[in-house]
Amino acid sequence: MASEAAVADLLLALAVIIVVAKLFEELISWKGYPPVLGDILAGIVLGPSILDILTPNIVEELDLLKWIGIISLLFLAGMETKFTEFMRSLHHSFWIAFGGILSSFFMGYAAGFLLGYPQPTCLFLGAVLTATSVGLTVKVLSDIGAIAHPIASSILGAAVLDDVGGLIVLGLTVAMVSSGGARIEDLLVTAGVAIAFYVFLILALHRSSAGIWRWLTRLGHLQDTIISILFAITLIVAWASVKVNLSLVVGAYAVGLAFSEVRGARAVIERFSLIPNIFSSIFFVLSAAMIDIKPYLTHLEYLVPIIVIVVVAIASKIIGCGLAAKLSGLSIAESLFTGVGMIPRAEVALVITSLGLAYGVLSDEVVAGVIILIYVTSILTPILLTRLWRIVSGRKG
Amino acid sequence: MASEAAVADLLLALAVIIVVAKLFEELISWKGYPPVLGDILAGIVLGPSILDILTPNIVEELDLLKWIGIISLLFLAGMETKFTEFMRSLHHSFWIAFGGILSSFFMGYAAGFLLGYPQPTCLFLGAVLTATSVGLTVKVLSDIGAIAHPIASSILGAAVLDDVGGLIVLGLTVAMVSSGGARIEDLLVTAGVAIAFYVFLILALHRSSAGIWRWLTRLGHLQDTIISILFAITLIVAWASVKVNLSLVVGAYAVGLAFSEVRGARAVIERFSLIPNIFSSIFFVLSAAMIDIKPYLTHLEYLVPIIVIVVVAIASKIIGCGLAAKLSGLSIAESLFTGVGMIPRAEVALVITSLGLAYGVLSDEVVAGVIILIYVTSILTPILLTRLWRIVSGRKG
Repeated sequence: MASEAAVADLLLALAVIIVVAKLFEELISWKGYPPVLGDILAGIVLGPSILDILTPNIVEELDLLKWIGIISLLFLAGMETKFTEFMRSLHHSFWIAFGGILSSFFMGYAAGFLLGYPQPTCLFLGAVLTATSVGLTVKVLSDIGAIAHPIASSILGAAVLDDVGGLIVLGLTVAMVSSGGARIEDLLVTAGVAIAFYVFLILALHRSSAGIWRWLTRLGHLQDTIISILFAITLIVAWASVKVNLSLVVGAYAVGLAFSEVRGARAVIERFSLIPNIFSSIFFVLSAAMIDIKPYLTHLEYLVPIIVIVVVAIASKIIGCGLAAKLSGLSIAESLFTGVGMIPRAEVALVITSLGLAYGVLSDEVVAGVIILIYVTSILTPILLTRLWRIVSGRKG
Repeated sequence: MASEAAVADLLLALAVIIVVAKLFEELISWKGYPPVLGDILAGIVLGPSILDILTPNIVEELDLLKWIGIISLLFLAGMETKFTEFMRSLHHSFWIAFGGILSSFFMGYAAGFLLGYPQPTCLFLGAVLTATSVGLTVKVLSDIGAIAHPIASSILGAAVLDDVGGLIVLGLTVAMVSSGGARIEDLLVTAGVAIAFYVFLILALHRSSAGIWRWLTRLGHLQDTIISILFAITLIVAWASVKVNLSLVVGAYAVGLAFSEVRGARAVIERFSLIPNIFSSIFFVLSAAMIDIKPYLTHLEYLVPIIVIVVVAIASKIIGCGLAAKLSGLSIAESLFTGVGMIPRAEVALVITSLGLAYGVLSDEVVAGVIILIYVTSILTPILLTRLWRIVSGRKG
């Protein structure tokens, strides 16, 4: 009862999140948009900006559930995109990530220059804008039925590479900004370890996936033993990814990808999808309920930097990734779709921003810009991807 | 990344729990015992008594997941036992609960008297032994395929009534032990509110279940909207149950029961079962990993009280519930099965014990007895129920 009483209020908060999220999802999808947009709107309504039901304390207590939600979603996305397809699109992915990082870093730097910021601030702003957060795009791709399309593999591959690339950019930026010498060697080691880990992981897991699957089917006589252990493997890889400075979603995606071609993949996808269907809603609601945006909107003097940051952040990924996609052989509509798929920014951008604050090179107006950016891309990405998908897939709106 | 890094180690712990639990489950079920016994053993192995991997901090951080596990299990059990069956067995349930409470309270009191304890301690010991924890029995019934049998309804109904009855016994005990006057009125109000809430809840929810279901099927066009909202309703009722001093599992069971006869019940059971299959393992592992039992076993002077408490606690429920079951018309094997189904004690007994410590009427040797009791019943219940089920169901071992 002691533990029960402490947990009771969290259960109520969880119930409110689920009910409101599902109602918004149904409403939004009835309007023709991806359900995840409903989660985002539910989060904004329940969060500190409007109803203020989801207090920071509740958000923090539900942190683990939220990460389970996004990890399960990325595992499922990996299962659905297929390893072979991922490998086939890898050269597209590489150029898309490269174009996006280059463009967002330099356009971020230029934006800082235009706003009259000193050089270290410009550098950090560039680094902040580099970091794409792929969770939202994955959910939209899944919602609109695009997840098994080759273009989904290109975008998700690019998002994975963006994670590694962002690590390098951030490392370089910190090296240049901090006074304690460059330490490029450390950076190269960090990035090298991350890349080596990821490449080894994905190849080794895929190579052994058929064997592991056979072993699991021989071991698992009880219902859901196989799914439970696959889920546990995903959690372990997510943990390991964080340890090598990658994002945990990137690790979760790798596990799904590695097992995407085992014999029982379809059955696993079908049954496992319940978990992300419940828990990824929690992720998106809580992500959108993270911050009270009102204080940032009431500072009129922040208006110009906010607009500049938001516009540059969005334009830079569309231009950089889109151009790279076009050059690597995709159609114009596909390239635009790709570029839009790479615009979401979320927690990683916020973490880099806090780092910049800690180094004393970023100010509150940049924080305001990044926060508004997160909300704008959260709402814009589902809407734009849905419209572009009608063109890419050749369906009439 | 900030939040990701903080959560990474929990993900690893979670993965370890799931893998070890599932391996033990498979092993145990291969030996012919219910998988949940594997979870209990996994918890003992991983917990502070042996490997000490699951530190108190981890156990605490995973608290919410654990409760989600047991809530989802009880919701499923409610769906599977069927409302009509529950109502039909209610008179059995009443006498079983009544017999068990009476017998365990008075035998607990007598045990205290034999051990030479003062009267307040005897009273509290009686109250401690009253509280049956039904989670384990539910899982065993489900594991051995007995959950849809009328006897499961009798036992689960008795467990629900035991929760209300335990509330009354505890209230009376505290009133007698505490010096601040009897306050029997407060107790009657508390118990009255709990009973009224539960009866109203279960009847109202069941009465409106067909309507809610129709509304849900009309609303829910997206995959798993219906299941998500049913789950949210369960969480809300669990919360409300705690608020009226009932256990949250009792509330979760009521929701499952109320919806057990809607048209899509079978499909919900089939799909939803993934959640308890993953998360209830976490509940049982963490419950068994809660306490380091070594210090209690090394005190030789505790040996006699421990043995007396464990034997009396087990015997009193088997005798009280079994006799009542027999008198209300069940066969000898069924009555024994019922009695054994009511022996598990868990957190509630521990909470009442802490309350007794706080009132200064219980000592460390009683705490030791209750803790060993929890472990003994956790291991004994699955084994005994499995063997008895072979007789009750008329199957050969």
